[in-house]
Amino acid sequence: MNEQGIMHVPDSKYCFPLDERRLVLRLRLDRKDSIEKVEVIYECKYVIHEKQRRVCMERCYEDRLYAYYETELLLTDVRLAYVFRIWEDGKGYYFSEDGLSETYDFTLGYFNFFQLPYINKADVHEEVDWMREAVFYEIFVDRFCIGAEDKDKSYINMKWGDKPAPKSFAGGDIPGITKKLDYISGLGVNALYLTPIFRAVSNHKYDISDYHTVDEHFGNNEDFGCMVKEAHKRGMRVVLDAVFNHCSEFLPQFQDVRRRGKDSPYFDWFIIDGDKPDRDQLNYEVFSFCAYMPKFNTSNKEVQEFLLDIAVSWIRKYDIDGWRLDVSDEISHDFWRTFRKRVKEVKKDCVIIGENWHDANSFLHGDQYDSIMNYAFTKACLDYYAFENFGAQEFAWKLNELLMRNTGQVNIMMMNLLDSHDTDRFYTSVCRNKDKVLSAIAVMCMFPGAPCIYYGTEILLEGGYDPDNRRCFDWNRENWDEDFCKRVTDLLELRRQKVVQQGEIRITSKGELFCLSRFLGEEEFLLMANESKAEAAVQCKGNVLIGNHLILNGESGAKQGRISGSLGKDGFMIARIKKGGCGL
Amino acid sequence: MNEQGIMHVPDSKYCFPLDERRLVLRLRLDRKDSIEKVEVIYECKYVIHEKQRRVCMERCYEDRLYAYYETELLLTDVRLAYVFRIWEDGKGYYFSEDGLSETYDFTLGYFNFFQLPYINKADVHEEVDWMREAVFYEIFVDRFCIGAEDKDKSYINMKWGDKPAPKSFAGGDIPGITKKLDYISGLGVNALYLTPIFRAVSNHKYDISDYHTVDEHFGNNEDFGCMVKEAHKRGMRVVLDAVFNHCSEFLPQFQDVRRRGKDSPYFDWFIIDGDKPDRDQLNYEVFSFCAYMPKFNTSNKEVQEFLLDIAVSWIRKYDIDGWRLDVSDEISHDFWRTFRKRVKEVKKDCVIIGENWHDANSFLHGDQYDSIMNYAFTKACLDYYAFENFGAQEFAWKLNELLMRNTGQVNIMMMNLLDSHDTDRFYTSVCRNKDKVLSAIAVMCMFPGAPCIYYGTEILLEGGYDPDNRRCFDWNRENWDEDFCKRVTDLLELRRQKVVQQGEIRITSKGELFCLSRFLGEEEFLLMANESKAEAAVQCKGNVLIGNHLILNGESGAKQGRISGSLGKDGFMIARIKKGGCGL
Repeated sequence: MNEQGIMHVPDSKYCFPLDERRLVLRLRLDRKDSIEKVEVIYECKYVIHEKQRRVCMERCYEDRLYAYYETELLLTDVRLAYVFRIWEDGKGYYFSEDGLSETYDFTLGYFNFFQLPYINKADVHEEVDWMREAVFYEIFVDRFCIGAEDKDKSYINMKWGDKPAPKSFAGGDIPGITKKLDYISGLGVNALYLTPIFRAVSNHKYDISDYHTVDEHFGNNEDFGCMVKEAHKRGMRVVLDAVFNHCSEFLPQFQDVRRRGKDSPYFDWFIIDGDKPDRDQLNYEVFSFCAYMPKFNTSNKEVQEFLLDIAVSWIRKYDIDGWRLDVSDEISHDFWRTFRKRVKEVKKDCVIIGENWHDANSFLHGDQYDSIMNYAFTKACLDYYAFENFGAQEFAWKLNELLMRNTGQVNIMMMNLLDSHDTDRFYTSVCRNKDKVLSAIAVMCMFPGAPCIYYGTEILLEGGYDPDNRRCFDWNRENWDEDFCKRVTDLLELRRQKVVQQGEIRITSKGELFCLSRFLGEEEFLLMANESKAEAAVQCKGNVLIGNHLILNGESGAKQGRISGSLGKDGFMIARIKKGGCGL
Repeated sequence: MNEQGIMHVPDSKYCFPLDERRLVLRLRLDRKDSIEKVEVIYECKYVIHEKQRRVCMERCYEDRLYAYYETELLLTDVRLAYVFRIWEDGKGYYFSEDGLSETYDFTLGYFNFFQLPYINKADVHEEVDWMREAVFYEIFVDRFCIGAEDKDKSYINMKWGDKPAPKSFAGGDIPGITKKLDYISGLGVNALYLTPIFRAVSNHKYDISDYHTVDEHFGNNEDFGCMVKEAHKRGMRVVLDAVFNHCSEFLPQFQDVRRRGKDSPYFDWFIIDGDKPDRDQLNYEVFSFCAYMPKFNTSNKEVQEFLLDIAVSWIRKYDIDGWRLDVSDEISHDFWRTFRKRVKEVKKDCVIIGENWHDANSFLHGDQYDSIMNYAFTKACLDYYAFENFGAQEFAWKLNELLMRNTGQVNIMMMNLLDSHDTDRFYTSVCRNKDKVLSAIAVMCMFPGAPCIYYGTEILLEGGYDPDNRRCFDWNRENWDEDFCKRVTDLLELRRQKVVQQGEIRITSKGELFCLSRFLGEEEFLLMANESKAEAAVQCKGNVLIGNHLILNGESGAKQGRISGSLGKDGFMIARIKKGGCGL
């Protein structure tokens, strides 16, 4: 056994409660160890020296380096003590807080057993239940649709459909979104994520000067209220962008500081090295190096209250369903803890999604965000579909690794995405290969967490890095690939299946085939994808639900419930199979 | 390289800020890897794709499985991105969030570099500075000293000095402690930790029925106020025991619930399965299985306020200096976060010490406790000095492992102990071997964190498990081993040395010798201990400060500044040496 590879940490993603009685235990071992069996020996910590229960753990996930064993315990006494029992080559080992040993003395266990001393309700990360079925659609508002035809259009400085420049205004607005809600809903989408809509001079509006007012380019607060109502009527949720790390230099409070320096009551709202903010010297902290976006001092209580009031008021007044947190990783844990309390008090199922591009586990213990925009998932898809860094095996390993970064609840609430306003468009990254896009969407729809489609993906909108990734939606249907759009819709529909919402997951590879299975009770859905250069044979019992470049042999098909054939390059298949039917 | 053994987690004990500009990075590798060099490549995350800085990491700690490399960065821009560079067998590797690789593309780094995106003051775990020089003395109040000679002694049911039974009352009290403050201070102690002093029917008083009143057996609130004043006069801090997990069945609120069941406004203060608490059926949650100690429902806001008020009021009214938190691991993180805020608002340098016997890292991120009672240190000392589970090497490995469980700040604030009212007395555990006790105290005094002497250790009080570990202090000096007591005092005095308070630490072994070195600037203190069955040769340049069973060869000693000789069984030596003089 590679002892250095063993990992378990109580009160972490390796040991977390699902509710006040149920908890999940995970043990990480070197993938290459020849393990025969892993058990948990457990009991109430006050009696484990006298008696112990045991249960087998299942090998559920494998990444490049490790294998992960998992089990769920249902407890009556939640003062849990436990050690692991690992069998290798016929020999049994104990694994406790003091590491691996051949013997274990339970009478001295109180010094070194693992424990979850009590499950306190306040520490349980409760799921936002609608996230299990959510399908997001991200809209960059200025580029989606012009709804208010009669508005003052003098600010618009580009022709709809032209390539955008950094300071282009195309005219998209909130009424435009409202107008297209049926279209969006028709795609199978049931949640909107809008980039910022509050008053700001830029087109992206990440430089907010008034957090309580919809930008006049986009309409007004009433338009927004109407849009939310219409969305809710269609069973669609609305998530807004909370830009709390920084603001616009035109925020009145910053303007006051600019004028009065240290005499301003808002001087400590910002982080200034000197008596006054100086744009040329950039003697104040900002987002990145953008002088027009001064950073808030979120340690200041007044700033905290200012921002918390915004967070709560848009929920109270307009009944929004979530906040996506811009540059959330540069703001304190302390702030997000208070933010969560305030937000959840007002609306318990308001989802909180951080913009952390990296492993954000320290924000995801249930006391801060619910989840993040899953850019690590994006990168894995790019490595498999675009960059040729991954074969099927490496892709499977990476996706398992990502699942093991967080608790089950967080995984279920992840916002998974292939691209966004901050990346190249996926279609462009894969050199305009539609099949790759479909296959990647298939994976995203089958993966735990909510898929998020960047507006225009369904009509094959192209675009490189910012500002090219923010092109105008093309509403001329004649230019659409209707077949592609239909296939995207079919894939998003999969999210309505209970097995996809609630099923367990296993991700593996078979030769050059990537395999992802979801199962619940007797039902199993199997996804296979082929990104190798050759055709790959496919064989299992079941019925194909949807596929691409799948060539079935003679007798195969619905009739016999047997699938036998091959997947072409960039092809994928999703089948409903008999449980265990693929031998994964 | 054993890739499975590599470990780094941003925003954790592997990457933590010391203040708003300085942070510590740690990288864990397999101890047996033949590493040549480890570097950190780092820069502001917004420019690392263009330029990078690099700095070497030092191999600072080794445990049984791993080696830990560490460095401290002083940053001007605290939006840090970094990857590690590891050299093995002439070959260089990068280590990023995506693992080990031979090449690394900094232009795509935003997907997978490690990062500490910003150091927010609110998230920095600030040290309680007096803990760097603290020497604790734990007092089990009923057994230490009777001060109020004229009090009603009718409750006393044992003769002072007899073996205590579970329900014995010996008569010790707060005035008794006040009377002995000069004695305690004379030992070199500058902090008291008292087991509970509030109204309770038991002798241990962990079953509190009135949290605002000193138990009448122990005196009254005035006596306590006087004691704190007298302690403070002598530069001694006072830490009380916060029993917040549970209370006494005689707490008025529980009594009300017992009478009125669900009609009581306090029904939800406890966790009751039924309409009324039933002592025989034990249908309510309690501490362990003790019906007389009902568990508080600390998720209840009223309970929280009730307890927080207690915590704050004893600081406000009596100026206490810290809280030790009883059964703290069974209470929610959520509660302790609020507790910390309230306590630190009132008294910033009030120390918060949890009673977690296990790795408590999830409580020690700076948002909850400052530290814990370090029972893992206790166990390591038992394994080395009492149980013969450890040789010098294993002991050194284990102590390094314990240091690597937490951040530097937490280590400095640890309450290290050899025994307490909840364990056998150390002197008894080592079969009344005084030399072992002295050697262990020497280690405890040189180890980061505050040593805590359980009352009577200095006079070789004996005792097995509860209630035997709570014997009466013997105030008859004729029974004392004055030489032993003097040696303990000499050891505690070491804590006044700056190098012991602030120096870096290296813990290793040399053959059968355990070696612990502290160094600061040019100054180095070296501790060597011998728990093998034979004498062990000792050689280094410097001067012996204190030792036991150290036999020096002819010319050795202060004169030449050379130490050459041998350490006998159970002997130890602490020397002031030239930096690097021992070749550790």
